[in-house]
Order: sequence, then structure tokens, then C-alpha cells
Amino acid sequence: MCDLLRINVDRGVMIGDGKSRFTISGQPIFHFVGTSTFSEYTVIHVGCLAKINPEAPLDKVCILSCGISTGLGATLNVAKPAKGSTVAIFGLGAVGLAAMEGARLAGASRIIGVDINPAKYEQAKKFGCTEFVNPKDHDKPVQEVLIELTNGGVDRSVECTGNINAMISAFECVHDGWGVAVLVGVPHKDDQFKTHPMNFLSEKTLKGTFFGNYKPRTDLPNVVEMYMKKELELEKFITHSVPFSEINTAFDLMLKGESLRCIMRMED
Amino acid sequence: MCDLLRINVDRGVMIGDGKSRFTISGQPIFHFVGTSTFSEYTVIHVGCLAKINPEAPLDKVCILSCGISTGLGATLNVAKPAKGSTVAIFGLGAVGLAAMEGARLAGASRIIGVDINPAKYEQAKKFGCTEFVNPKDHDKPVQEVLIELTNGGVDRSVECTGNINAMISAFECVHDGWGVAVLVGVPHKDDQFKTHPMNFLSEKTLKGTFFGNYKPRTDLPNVVEMYMKKELELEKFITHSVPFSEINTAFDLMLKGESLRCIMRMED
Repeated sequence: MCDLLRINVDRGVMIGDGKSRFTISGQPIFHFVGTSTFSEYTVIHVGCLAKINPEAPLDKVCILSCGISTGLGATLNVAKPAKGSTVAIFGLGAVGLAAMEGARLAGASRIIGVDINPAKYEQAKKFGCTEFVNPKDHDKPVQEVLIELTNGGVDRSVECTGNINAMISAFECVHDGWGVAVLVGVPHKDDQFKTHPMNFLSEKTLKGTFFGNYKPRTDLPNVVEMYMKKELELEKFITHSVPFSEINTAFDLMLKGESLRCIMRMED
Repeated sequence: MCDLLRINVDRGVMIGDGKSRFTISGQPIFHFVGTSTFSEYTVIHVGCLAKINPEAPLDKVCILSCGISTGLGATLNVAKPAKGSTVAIFGLGAVGLAAMEGARLAGASRIIGVDINPAKYEQAKKFGCTEFVNPKDHDKPVQEVLIELTNGGVDRSVECTGNINAMISAFECVHDGWGVAVLVGVPHKDDQFKTHPMNFLSEKTLKGTFFGNYKPRTDLPNVVEMYMKKELELEKFITHSVPFSEINTAFDLMLKGESLRCIMRMED
């Protein structure tokens, strides 16, 4: 994924002098993604640093590092649903639920969750989900189901699966004239997005986003403030917590799709 | 084309009572596209009527009926280039030149015309064209040529050919992060727009437009005012004028690509 997005995770050294800042027994320890945040103290390039409210609890706001901010920003910064509008969210994993939280904060009145796993609906309700559509329950393409359900199409859609067919459905289900679809999911490198160009002439808009269009240094402190003002709820994303020594349990929970976010504690 | 756009040209009768308002020798004459504008006087549905400045010369502003407004609005209402930005226009027919006129009015500083016919460049200069790219002069895809020429991509592109490959090029040539491509050309009914979805994640936006997003009754009077204030130039679109009896000459000029707009005079 990082390779496709051209994020350099291999560098592992400071960009200024090409060296690491850590050693163990005289051997360098490299900086993973330039941050090395699996340590209690770290040295990072100033460009990787965002100063946030010192009152913010780090064991909560740490989840704003990537996926949650991406989903939230995809809705708040890119899709920008009007108050009272109808929003479809494709994929109800942590990123999709963050996009849903954005729709709730924006005041959307219908928030339709789309997922092939019906078990996701219960959890999604906590994030503002008002309706659930399972593409497997229908013989026709899910975009047609959504167009019927909303009498013409949703106002905004946000795609958080990375599945190319979900991307196409997310685009085609928005309303002619004003509908905006936002692609967030990371596609397979050989995928092709295909649609009939008439869908553009009928004035649907297609956009994508990287990190929810947030500029991390400038914007993350404000996202933290949204949490401090109790507008944005982060606790509901944190489904698990394990001591650092059990990091592999955390990976298992993630891979099985059982956790949204698992906090790792440095001591226990 | 009208069929693909779902414009009902067959109806030919008033929507209220399903009848025509004209007869000849007792036989009904139908209203073509609901307007019958090949007559000196006509009866139309109030929804088809826009009241414009009575001082406006009808033999000039009549060209605002469809393609010219579409191209102009595609740039001014949808692409919305900032002053000083770089705009690529694909296809230098009348619609493309109207889109180019929009870029000139918006204050774009680089306006790149893209067409497979190099003869179009001379005429395009009158519409603000500062550079010309002929895809046939290059071995690589024209989007790559434009990305090199502009050191990263154009700020805005407007596609006015209807060719599916030009649509894809017009999208892929815009700059990551803020580029917007607008599709105006009417595609073939079997066409598929194909691109790698990473182009969306890198924050390019793709839109289309019908009639340049102008609402005819509300907005056309203002376009006429732009002409009356000598901001918008219409004369340069009018390359020919023939008496009505020579209507077939006008069609020949259009089909051969020799005219931009040919005015038909009711008497001579």
C-alpha cells in the first residue's frame, strides 16, 4: 500500500545527513516511516511534527495518525455534505466509520452504510448509520439499489474499501447534477476504474483524497481540538487495548477484522 | 446525440395539451425541439423562454443557444480556473474555442490548445490560445507531453471532442492535488472511461457538464450582458452568413469543419 502511494518507508534515516539517530550496541536502529513511534522518546524531522493541545490524552488522539483522519477528512474536507443531506459510506471498517463520523458531524440526515458483512451494521449505528444495504442481498448492482432507495441518488458517497467495483458503484450511485463521490480506498495496482462518460455529462463529480486532504502539521491540531470539545468521539473507535509485549495479538485482531483500533500500552 | 442526452426532439407538441400550435393546409406542423425557431414568429412553452436585453442584436446572440454557451460555461462555471493559471483545451472546434474564450475571460495565463489538426492553431490564437500541442507529433500519450510541458500538469482541462481517449488524456494531464478536468464532449454510447484509480487518490478531480451548468432561463440573460459589455466576443465565432434558402450550404460548411457558426438570414 505504501509502495503504491509512493510513501518511502525504507529510508529509515534522517533526510538531512542520511543517518539514524538511534543505536543499540553500536549498531544503527532505523526510523520506521521516519518516526519510530514504537519508542517512548524519538527524534523526528521537524516536518513530521505537529504540536497539539498538551491536555490531549495521547492514548486517545494517537489514533488520528492515519486511517481515522483520512476517513474523517474525506467527508469533512472533500465530500462536504450539506446539513440534512444523504450520504452513502462504502465499507464499514475503521476508515469507513471515520467517514461516517464525518457525515454525522456535518449533519447528514440519512447515512447509508454499504458492506457485504451484515454484522457491521450494529457497530455502525454508533457512528450515525441510519440505514444498511448489503450488496449481496440484491440481484442488481448496488448503485441501482441506492438510486431507488433515495429516489434519484445519494448527495455524497465515500468509498473506503479499495475494491474497484465498490469504487465504480460509489461513483454511479450519486445524484445527477450535484452528486459528489470521494474515493478513499487504496486500489490494487492493476485495477482500472471504468464508467460510461455520460455519468460525467450528467454532472456527477468524482474525486479522491490522500489523508483526507488534511495538511498534517497545520490541520491535525484542529482535529485534536474537535475531540477536546467533545464534537468528535474517538473512544468508540478504540475497541481493544493490549500491553506492548502482546503486539502480535493486536495484529491478529486487526487481520481478523475484530478490532477497529487497538491501543498498545507501554507498560502494564 | 440528443438521444444519448435524453433530450426529447420527437415530441414536437406543447406539453400542456399534446397539440401543435401551427398548421399548414389543415395539417399540423410540429415544434422541433419544442421551439420551432426556423420561423419568424413562434409559440413556445414558457419554460423554454429566456428574456434578454432588448438591445441585443439577435443575429449575434442567437449563437448562445447551445454549443457556445456549453463551452463557455464549462470553463467559467465548472472548471473555474484561477487568474494566472494554466488551462488545456482538448478540441478546437466551436465548443472548444468557446471553452477557450472562457479561460481567456477568467484570466488564465497559459492556454494550451490540443488538436490533431494543426490548421486549427491560427484561429485559436484569436480566442487566447498561447500554445498548441498536436498529439500526432508525439510518440508518448499527450497527457505525458502536457505534464512535462507544465512541470507537473495543467491546473484545469476542458475536453470538447467527445473522443474517449481525449477524455482520459484530459483527466490524466491535470495536476495532482488540485487539478480539475471537465468533460464536455458527447461520447459514443458504447464508450468506457478507464483510468487507474490512483489518479483520484492523488487528488485530481473529474467532472462533466451539460449546457455548461447554465440554467438557461436565469443565466442566459447574463451571458448576453457579458456580450453587451464587450467582455465576451461573439463576432469571432460567426465565420459565415447565408440566406435561409441556402441552408444546405450552411450544413455543408459545418460538416466539412469550415465554419464555426454560420448565421442564416431570413431575407436577403
